[in-house]
Amino acid sequence: AQIALERDYEAQREFDTRYRVLMETTEDAFVFVSATTGKVIDLNRKAAKILGGNREDITGSAFSQAFGSVQNAADFLTTLSETANTDAPKPIQAKTRNSNKQVMIAPKIFRVSGESVLLCMVSVGEKSTASNETAN
Amino acid sequence: AQIALERDYEAQREFDTRYRVLMETTEDAFVFVSATTGKVIDLNRKAAKILGGNREDITGSAFSQAFGSVQNAADFLTTLSETANTDAPKPIQAKTRNSNKQVMIAPKIFRVSGESVLLCMVSVGEKSTASNETAN
Repeated sequence: AQIALERDYEAQREFDTRYRVLMETTEDAFVFVSATTGKVIDLNRKAAKILGGNREDITGSAFSQAFGSVQNAADFLTTLSETANTDAPKPIQAKTRNSNKQVMIAPKIFRVSGESVLLCMVSVGEKSTASNETAN
Repeated sequence: AQIALERDYEAQREFDTRYRVLMETTEDAFVFVSATTGKVIDLNRKAAKILGGNREDITGSAFSQAFGSVQNAADFLTTLSETANTDAPKPIQAKTRNSNKQVMIAPKIFRVSGESVLLCMVSVGEKSTASNETAN
């Protein structure tokens, strides 16, 4: 059993690495959010840039805090989960607090280790005057 | 040590799941290829659609086989690795065998468990007459 566990462990290490490479290679902005606490589990650099912060600061903070337009964190989390559970979900509109950008949030929900997690794809919804979106 | 290993194992399970959700949510077409054997380790549905096959058939096959324009599998693999190792890599042009589409392949290389792996982002390079690209 110990050997089998170690073999699985090695295989899982691969997913860990592939996950990280994927997060930094995709052209989409992704934020993983706990559906229970509303806190950011992980996000990629593209998402951090749109939200106007850095990955380290945003990780662990409430996702709702990234949006100046959000009045109630609990309602926001409920809306994300309900939208994710809809058959043909419509993205949620919000305005970022730091960068003041109009964005669309498309959430998906899934379960892992008994916890519900939201994968939120964030895209800039309307043309922004800021030019740092395309710069890298 | 056993308990720590199991705790790590649980954490790694999360990456496994996040990896899978990410692969199916991203709007990019991704193929993971072994830099040693040239075989496809994994790909998402978007990539399978572009290549004109299904995920199950393509997984485990030589990546070069997906392209009618590739004459020499070993040279193709070398080109992918060399391009990935370039500072400012230029995507590789190829034509898919099954769907006869002109595509661009942008490879990245990374190491995991002592093996080199290529992450290839595939995009359709010129307008195709096939309408099934946007349909889902």
